[in-house]
Amino acid sequence: MRQSQLFTKTRRDAPKDEEAKNAQLLIRAGYVKKEMAGVYSYLPLGIKVLANIERIVRREMDAIGGQELRMATLHPSEPWKQTGAWDGVDVLFKLMSRTEKEYALGQSEEEIVAPIAQEYANSYKDFPIALYQIGQKYRDELRAKSGIMRGREFGMKDMYSFHTSQEDFDRFYAIVKEAYLRIYRECNLTAKVTEASGGSFSEKISYEFMVLTDAGEDTIFYCEECDYCVNEEVAKVKEGDTCPSCSKGTLKAGVASEVGNVFDLGQKYAKDFKFMYKDAEGIDQYPIEGCYGLGITRLMGVIVEALADEKGIVWPEAVAPFRYHLLSLAPDDADVKAFADALYGDMLTGSVLYDDRDARAGEKFADSDLIGIPWRVIVGKDTLKSGMVELVNRATGEVSKLSREDFLTR
Amino acid sequence: MRQSQLFTKTRRDAPKDEEAKNAQLLIRAGYVKKEMAGVYSYLPLGIKVLANIERIVRREMDAIGGQELRMATLHPSEPWKQTGAWDGVDVLFKLMSRTEKEYALGQSEEEIVAPIAQEYANSYKDFPIALYQIGQKYRDELRAKSGIMRGREFGMKDMYSFHTSQEDFDRFYAIVKEAYLRIYRECNLTAKVTEASGGSFSEKISYEFMVLTDAGEDTIFYCEECDYCVNEEVAKVKEGDTCPSCSKGTLKAGVASEVGNVFDLGQKYAKDFKFMYKDAEGIDQYPIEGCYGLGITRLMGVIVEALADEKGIVWPEAVAPFRYHLLSLAPDDADVKAFADALYGDMLTGSVLYDDRDARAGEKFADSDLIGIPWRVIVGKDTLKSGMVELVNRATGEVSKLSREDFLTR
Repeated sequence: MRQSQLFTKTRRDAPKDEEAKNAQLLIRAGYVKKEMAGVYSYLPLGIKVLANIERIVRREMDAIGGQELRMATLHPSEPWKQTGAWDGVDVLFKLMSRTEKEYALGQSEEEIVAPIAQEYANSYKDFPIALYQIGQKYRDELRAKSGIMRGREFGMKDMYSFHTSQEDFDRFYAIVKEAYLRIYRECNLTAKVTEASGGSFSEKISYEFMVLTDAGEDTIFYCEECDYCVNEEVAKVKEGDTCPSCSKGTLKAGVASEVGNVFDLGQKYAKDFKFMYKDAEGIDQYPIEGCYGLGITRLMGVIVEALADEKGIVWPEAVAPFRYHLLSLAPDDADVKAFADALYGDMLTGSVLYDDRDARAGEKFADSDLIGIPWRVIVGKDTLKSGMVELVNRATGEVSKLSREDFLTR
Repeated sequence: MRQSQLFTKTRRDAPKDEEAKNAQLLIRAGYVKKEMAGVYSYLPLGIKVLANIERIVRREMDAIGGQELRMATLHPSEPWKQTGAWDGVDVLFKLMSRTEKEYALGQSEEEIVAPIAQEYANSYKDFPIALYQIGQKYRDELRAKSGIMRGREFGMKDMYSFHTSQEDFDRFYAIVKEAYLRIYRECNLTAKVTEASGGSFSEKISYEFMVLTDAGEDTIFYCEECDYCVNEEVAKVKEGDTCPSCSKGTLKAGVASEVGNVFDLGQKYAKDFKFMYKDAEGIDQYPIEGCYGLGITRLMGVIVEALADEKGIVWPEAVAPFRYHLLSLAPDDADVKAFADALYGDMLTGSVLYDDRDARAGEKFADSDLIGIPWRVIVGKDTLKSGMVELVNRATGEVSKLSREDFLTR
């Protein structure tokens, strides 16, 4: 896409009331607009990133047998009252219609998904079932100061699985865990899996996927020698302790952001909704349910927090809005312009943002650093002399020179 | 996909309180689940259809220069108060946070999109701008009896364009109109364009895209000889009149469903938000705004209403969840099963639903009619004898016999 056609522009400053680094950078680069604390609109560059994250998540959930749904977000109050969450969940948004009917806005979908599964699963042969969706969630947060990382409205992938035994849930959880770790790796993040408290969802132990970032809200203790990791909230260990798992490493403390979680919901919702199936002996049983969250917009924010440098955003290739940022440094020079235009014409349209604007080189470099596309391709007067385009890696700064043909083959 | 893996099943009856044909068929076939009047969850088959409609709409909006956004749906009250819609729009859902801040749920996005455009467009050189999104909308409807055609929560594509002159808006409207008509044609619908009243949005004339269906809520008068069409609400003509446009045809009356609309919003929102740009002479001017709606879930409902027959749904190829429905009629016969399995293996996974269930032929035919996939491929004992698979067109009932090789080449 030609940058001159993009309706957003970069800006020097973020709004004064924006404290979070992720939102400051995303606003300045034109990815998001702040509507109010905790609520953002996603602009053309922003939804390209979201769409890439969603594509990765969808691919991984499909690969482990997840079936995609699109559940309602405007909920009747009845199932929320049935599970006790109508009065028990403080972040639940409630509203009333003109006809005085009460509704809730989905902050999670346990109340909707169990009755859906119940409608179709009545025999042990129908299990296991894994249903997921990607969509908006709403939470009435008292404070929302973490940019797009903790919103009153946010994008989330939530999956729910139903099983006929605890062993089958454990088997599936292990599969989901590997899929989550693949997703984070593709986003150039290293996630650690912790045990944490179940929060309001469940009395059982839950698992959290944590990424070390200065913007994190949690403190974790982790072992540098093995996978052991625990959230301070539930930790029975402290920094400097010998790892209770491998007995070799020493525990370090770190500030981390949650990028996913798993809850073992047991039979709570099945019992609330009288969701039973016939087992192989024809006896009625309640299924065991698991819940797997992954915040899409939150993950986008954590990527910015974890990978950005002093000059701006650094996107991993898999989620970047474009792979290449083509800068034409002398757009008033007809030969340079012709060279850059031709190069743009030979590249895949969806893979390149072409800065064809009539602007100074310094401004183009600064904008390009801020926007954070992985590969910068520079065409200037030197290119015509040497016949070589300059390719710069945004993350490492590494520069290589390639002929037009070698670049296009790449 | 193997039908035995699909977690939904067909059902004989729709819920008793479901009056609309579209929802009755979609529920029975397993496309949607009713959460309450006017609110549905979309199940795996259902989101395949929605994703196909969205793909067509996105392609057409991108092709005419639309830039996609994802605007917030939880809105601060301030912009709604600024435009007068907070008190003026009766279907606006309002809610309050724990901190006693008032919010609205997006029923349309004029209040959000104008400030977004304002942030980036300050010179006449920045225009025209066309911004669109595909997402959920919320309306506090007093009654919701039309299935997925008129919901309290529904999926919509809404686009907003900004122009420096009325001529430029008219030029762009003509382009959008052609794109809309291409979208409906791809859905096997014939849409007529009417003039209608502007509703609560605007005092100006608006345009509606109407499809003749028994489920329609509007009466239109249309000419059979030319494109003339008008909504009864604003009509100065009646049935049997000579067409005022071509003076040749006679006007017919028909019941129709709206599948899209255009509003000329003039400078209303620009003035409300003091959204001005500098024209070529450096003078401040208000842009002219247009709004273009297309209900995604509504279109899905209209397709069902307009094309279904007494046996079930009939999907157009472009939006069908799968292109082929492969029925194995004797799954207990090892040779038939092997033939069908091999054929399934050679087809593109995403293009075929394979009914590998252990069920009677009659049940498979009835389910297949109900689900409405365009091409049925039948493999039974006859197939092994003749070497020919039977291909049946769902819409026409036309049967052809093809060798395995000829079918796969197709």
